[in-house]
Amino acid sequence: MKSERQWDIKVSHYAQNTINPIRQVLENLNASPNPNKKLIPLSIGDPTVFGNLEPNNVIIEAMVESIQSNKFNGYLPSNGIESARKAIAEYSSTNNVQVDPKDVIITSGCSHALEMAINVLAEPGKNILLPRPGFPLYQTLCGGLGIGMKYYNLDAEKNWEIDLDHLEAQIDPSTVAIVYNNPSNPCGSVYSASHIRSFLEICEKHKVPVIADEIYEHLVFPGHKFTPIASLTQEVPILSCRGTTKRFMVPGYRCGWIIIHDKQERFGNPIRKGLNNLTHRIVGANSIVQGALPKILKEIPDEYFQDCISLIHANAKICYSITKRIPGLTPIMPTGAMYIMVGIDTSYFPELSSDLHFVERLMSEESIFVLPGKMFGVNGYIRIVLTVPSELLIEACNRLENFCLRNVILPSNQQQNGQPPTTPAKPLPLPLNLRESVKVD
Amino acid sequence: MKSERQWDIKVSHYAQNTINPIRQVLENLNASPNPNKKLIPLSIGDPTVFGNLEPNNVIIEAMVESIQSNKFNGYLPSNGIESARKAIAEYSSTNNVQVDPKDVIITSGCSHALEMAINVLAEPGKNILLPRPGFPLYQTLCGGLGIGMKYYNLDAEKNWEIDLDHLEAQIDPSTVAIVYNNPSNPCGSVYSASHIRSFLEICEKHKVPVIADEIYEHLVFPGHKFTPIASLTQEVPILSCRGTTKRFMVPGYRCGWIIIHDKQERFGNPIRKGLNNLTHRIVGANSIVQGALPKILKEIPDEYFQDCISLIHANAKICYSITKRIPGLTPIMPTGAMYIMVGIDTSYFPELSSDLHFVERLMSEESIFVLPGKMFGVNGYIRIVLTVPSELLIEACNRLENFCLRNVILPSNQQQNGQPPTTPAKPLPLPLNLRESVKVD
Repeated sequence: MKSERQWDIKVSHYAQNTINPIRQVLENLNASPNPNKKLIPLSIGDPTVFGNLEPNNVIIEAMVESIQSNKFNGYLPSNGIESARKAIAEYSSTNNVQVDPKDVIITSGCSHALEMAINVLAEPGKNILLPRPGFPLYQTLCGGLGIGMKYYNLDAEKNWEIDLDHLEAQIDPSTVAIVYNNPSNPCGSVYSASHIRSFLEICEKHKVPVIADEIYEHLVFPGHKFTPIASLTQEVPILSCRGTTKRFMVPGYRCGWIIIHDKQERFGNPIRKGLNNLTHRIVGANSIVQGALPKILKEIPDEYFQDCISLIHANAKICYSITKRIPGLTPIMPTGAMYIMVGIDTSYFPELSSDLHFVERLMSEESIFVLPGKMFGVNGYIRIVLTVPSELLIEACNRLENFCLRNVILPSNQQQNGQPPTTPAKPLPLPLNLRESVKVD
Repeated sequence: MKSERQWDIKVSHYAQNTINPIRQVLENLNASPNPNKKLIPLSIGDPTVFGNLEPNNVIIEAMVESIQSNKFNGYLPSNGIESARKAIAEYSSTNNVQVDPKDVIITSGCSHALEMAINVLAEPGKNILLPRPGFPLYQTLCGGLGIGMKYYNLDAEKNWEIDLDHLEAQIDPSTVAIVYNNPSNPCGSVYSASHIRSFLEICEKHKVPVIADEIYEHLVFPGHKFTPIASLTQEVPILSCRGTTKRFMVPGYRCGWIIIHDKQERFGNPIRKGLNNLTHRIVGANSIVQGALPKILKEIPDEYFQDCISLIHANAKICYSITKRIPGLTPIMPTGAMYIMVGIDTSYFPELSSDLHFVERLMSEESIFVLPGKMFGVNGYIRIVLTVPSELLIEACNRLENFCLRNVILPSNQQQNGQPPTTPAKPLPLPLNLRESVKVD
């Protein structure tokens, strides 16, 4: 019983082109930590890594109750159980936006929400506009299906606001959606209402719907405000993607959701039905989490969220104040989320050819791991995660400073002989009680 | 700031063509229950619906421990946490098959496992062979991406074995995989080792890999045996898709996995890497379940599984014995899973044009809801779910019998005047203690 056919199994283009840029960079990273120094990873946006940001007790209780009730073992509706969709609708409603539970679709994490939102609107031959710098997952999701990707710039000079002229110039007749991310990963920026309005004007003018990645909703520092994009438009249809991952410190739970905002019925039945179709592929989020969700969304005291934000904000100030004094580095003070972007002027570091090279050397010399801007689509930056314990962050920033001072060559107008100092000529003083000192601010 | 473009948002072909045949049939079902009779749904393969098949206490304990440990709140590796992959590898290893944890990929339910397995091997222009009758999800998953689907018949006369000649005739140069399902939904059949060997010979001859849906592993009735397909071949590469859904009675948990069997490295690195790429889209299963998995897979006493199987087996015998005596119905005794297929000879029911029509009338007259064979790709059958409490199943079968007797016209050699009896001429006696009587068997 023989056939002439030989084994020749090919991987699909879809799987081959579903590329995670982070993994790609990591795999090619030419560095291991300095064995004499403890590794401090400031790379992953996972607030649970160091144990300093644990989920609130209400979450633990709600989950245990959900399990012990024995009510949530079975299949739930593929768009999510009614009680959880109702809780999300209430949680997400504001004075300006009334969310109906029928407009909520529960997903297996916000990644899955983004995947569905992209897949329902885009396909090969069409394109989606993505922010640059931006979260690499957008690329992972679009690339696999062969969806065209075009990038619009965020302006570092303006606290990473959208470069609206650049955005508008990217829109073409094949543009089917704009991915918008506020608060932003990796930038840590939070848009003002007036900036969001200007963005929406362009969407309305060109009749392009928005996929709003609002997973960092409410994670904004004192004095700033999260404005849901849907609260500012009656015209532009929006798929807002959110979840429990960041605000509730449980990224492993994989519970996200899409809120459909479509006041003028421009998505209408086809998009709703399409999203509903897509829910049948893997049947949504874990049922225990869905059972716990009403309690999670209603009963966590406000102080918990404020404490988390205070910790991240204090860290932002620590990191900003140290990196600001380092020659060649230009931090951009974040106003939300859990990251800071620090510009690297490679002309100060002639032996380091790029931000990637900077990251590799920082790892091998100081055992500090940060992500290069390259991973987010921009050169000349590093992204530092701010959810670590402050003591560790100070230690990391100090090592970063030593590293820079060892490697810096000041431009000729700032130096004497043009040679890099082999050791820092004059180590800068590091405030002992920095954490306390900045907490007052 | 006006543009000439009008709002014209189109749903993607992918979302439009991700069609769930079950939903499609349900939406077009022209029936509501008889308001005077309590609805008995025998339609959904969810063992938790009636509360008679609760998960074992070990699962509840393991989940509570996992939550309270605070160890599993963060992101896990997108292919699953090492401890859970190790537990799955041990759980799935037999004398003939040693599974390595690196060959295990954890997914968000078995649906997600099947989605990934299909997506890594197939794409538009290629085709996949699917069993007929078969689980409609295969169609949902393939259809969206435009993957070609061809069907191979299962033979009702041979307890739903694969019609191997028919299967072989379907294979063409564009066939990239065969979806194989054992034990079978909807058939409730369990293949013998020798039948699986014959199937594998064809796969080997034509060099086609197998996507093995083995989610019903171990759910086999006494006297039968589940044989993992990978235990019978050194040659044919297999992606085996499994999970906690059916055997552990927790379909809502959404925890599945793929086991890669590739002794000759015919999948090799490209397929492994492709699967790994795909895990990055939505980052796997809920972390709490993954934390609980080692305990779940190791500590549930065997009696629990035996009790579940006894209940389903007893129900199978009840349903078989009642439906067998009903004129026009031909049940096929299952040997595993949780379903029975009952043939409907519509020539006995001249007012009922199809199995769909039969199902609608059964619903509107007797408030019994079963699924029509049409949903699984075959005409002339209904599928009855066997996980309900036996009392309810007896009640349901009795109502089914009354329904049939009201509607039947016996073929001319079995009747006197050719007219349908308006009420059953002679109601068949219904055994009072059927459950007890069959339990002995």
